[in-house]
Amino acid sequence: MLGLAALGTTHGAGAVETSVAIKQKVETLCQICHGIDGIATLPGAPNLAGQQKDYLLVQLRAYRDGSRHQPQMSVVAKMLSDDDIQGLAQWYSSIKVTVQTLQ
Amino acid sequence: MLGLAALGTTHGAGAVETSVAIKQKVETLCQICHGIDGIATLPGAPNLAGQQKDYLLVQLRAYRDGSRHQPQMSVVAKMLSDDDIQGLAQWYSSIKVTVQTLQ
Repeated sequence: MLGLAALGTTHGAGAVETSVAIKQKVETLCQICHGIDGIATLPGAPNLAGQQKDYLLVQLRAYRDGSRHQPQMSVVAKMLSDDDIQGLAQWYSSIKVTVQTLQ
Repeated sequence: MLGLAALGTTHGAGAVETSVAIKQKVETLCQICHGIDGIATLPGAPNLAGQQKDYLLVQLRAYRDGSRHQPQMSVVAKMLSDDDIQGLAQWYSSIKVTVQTLQ
């Protein structure tokens, strides 16, 4: 039997709290690989749409401090402040995703 | 304007090629954190539903060879054969996900 499970919240609600600065960072730093909506646009890049916020925070900090390494992300993460990381994790985690579940 | 973008393929199609052994590994090794349908069930664990297959392959191999480290995954990945990694990446990437896109 198939069912549907929704992840995240709508961008409509999240957008109210998303600063212009964060949207600009998504557009300039993130979307080239991950898409503005978290659908990967580059082979090998992960989808981020509806991803768990805690996971995104941990991974962005790991790229920034060097404990996780990947050529593009290790460069990009070093440009991010703590507030940027919070805002970008909020951006991608808040995209609404529906998953077809198997019961 | 809102739109919908579908990722992955249906499990119905993928299931034909999914061996019993892979399903057992999903049930015994993966689902406790990532859910059988790729919806994370543990704080800090990522959703894997509809994730890019190439990304999953690279990450599973990185956990296995030690180039990426995480307490649970570093243990689990060492139990996986090359075929297991292929099968598990296929499992999670083939779960159908619909993303609400912003146009």
